Amino acid sequence: MSEKGLLIVLSGPSGVGKGTVRKAIFKNGVDFEYSISMTSRNKRSGEIEGVDYFFKTREEFEELIEQGELLEYAKYVDNYYGTPVRHVRDTMDRGKDIFLEIEVQGAEQVKNKIPEALFIFLAPPSILDLECRLKGRGTESDEVIKERIAKARKEIQMMYLYDYVVENNEVDLAVERIKAIIQSEHLKRERVEMKYRRALLELEEEEI
Amino acid sequence: MSEKGLLIVLSGPSGVGKGTVRKAIFKNGVDFEYSISMTSRNKRSGEIEGVDYFFKTREEFEELIEQGELLEYAKYVDNYYGTPVRHVRDTMDRGKDIFLEIEVQGAEQVKNKIPEALFIFLAPPSILDLECRLKGRGTESDEVIKERIAKARKEIQMMYLYDYVVENNEVDLAVERIKAIIQSEHLKRERVEMKYRRALLELEEEEI
Repeated sequence: MSEKGLLIVLSGPSGVGKGTVRKAIFKNGVDFEYSISMTSRNKRSGEIEGVDYFFKTREEFEELIEQGELLEYAKYVDNYYGTPVRHVRDTMDRGKDIFLEIEVQGAEQVKNKIPEALFIFLAPPSILDLECRLKGRGTESDEVIKERIAKARKEIQMMYLYDYVVENNEVDLAVERIKAIIQSEHLKRERVEMKYRRALLELEEEEI
Repeated sequence: MSEKGLLIVLSGPSGVGKGTVRKAIFKNGVDFEYSISMTSRNKRSGEIEGVDYFFKTREEFEELIEQGELLEYAKYVDNYYGTPVRHVRDTMDRGKDIFLEIEVQGAEQVKNKIPEALFIFLAPPSILDLECRLKGRGTESDEVIKERIAKARKEIQMMYLYDYVVENNEVDLAVERIKAIIQSEHLKRERVEMKYRRALLELEEEEI
């Protein structure tokens, strides 16, 4: 009886560089799988079915939504994008971790369905400017500062459902931090203790 | 206004190799301080005051206990060993992390006083034998297996107050894991969000 795999969700504001960070994570080989998204948009030149996306027609996608086959989905510019739930559940049941890189709206849907997932928020480096600004005062207009405050406030509000926040000021550093988070998630006492107790129980049953 | 430092507590059953792991952690330079213990035992040849221990007489030690100057302490073979609280508090207030390597009884005292500390349990590799045993059955006597079960059960019961469990089957791996845990602790959403909110508040106050 093996331990269930983790669901790892990487998200963050659009434009933060989620895709770049995700690709960098998988570049050097990792111990978890990537969940390939499904889309109803047309395949672009060079894209491969089952590698870049699972390509479906709009009708097929809508039917899958109705059948509850999407863990999360959204519609952008008339096209659907989403995560097929089956592969996620199967991977976790096999004791393997699975990694999603999705939009914040999608992350909210996942949180509702699988609250025990590991939620990592990728924060834009611009949010750091807040602190830089405090140090190097008086070089920018009030207008610019007000806009920045409003943007930062919005980004901070997005964070509430996440377990961890990683600033994407440098891709390699962000990758290292995300890997550390995943590693330490496996070392949480509840998880390790459960594993030991299970082994102990099996051993005791055998002894009786 | 800087963020408060973390208190990191490494503990585990006696003989698990806490000291070895701790030394390996500090060997290559880290971003946190080591809390030097206090003892009433005699200084041994080669030991340096304020490096290996703070050496006190038994009377001095007992007075410090009465004054509440020990975060935790214990008596072994007529000698006191403990953690001076002042250095721990000062380091945390300076926004710096501080690392304790102590016995499980001491960790319980720390948990009562500073529950928000990060508690890491170093588990003996013998606990792993539980699982190995399940794989390679029938090579050991019932007596040996029963003893092992009893020992493992005791060790598992010790874990309840800890946040993480790291198996010490290989020192370098244990060190890497402990560092990952400390790194990810700093990336917890509550902690990062608080930092941002504080920066935002300062910036807004300035703008008014």
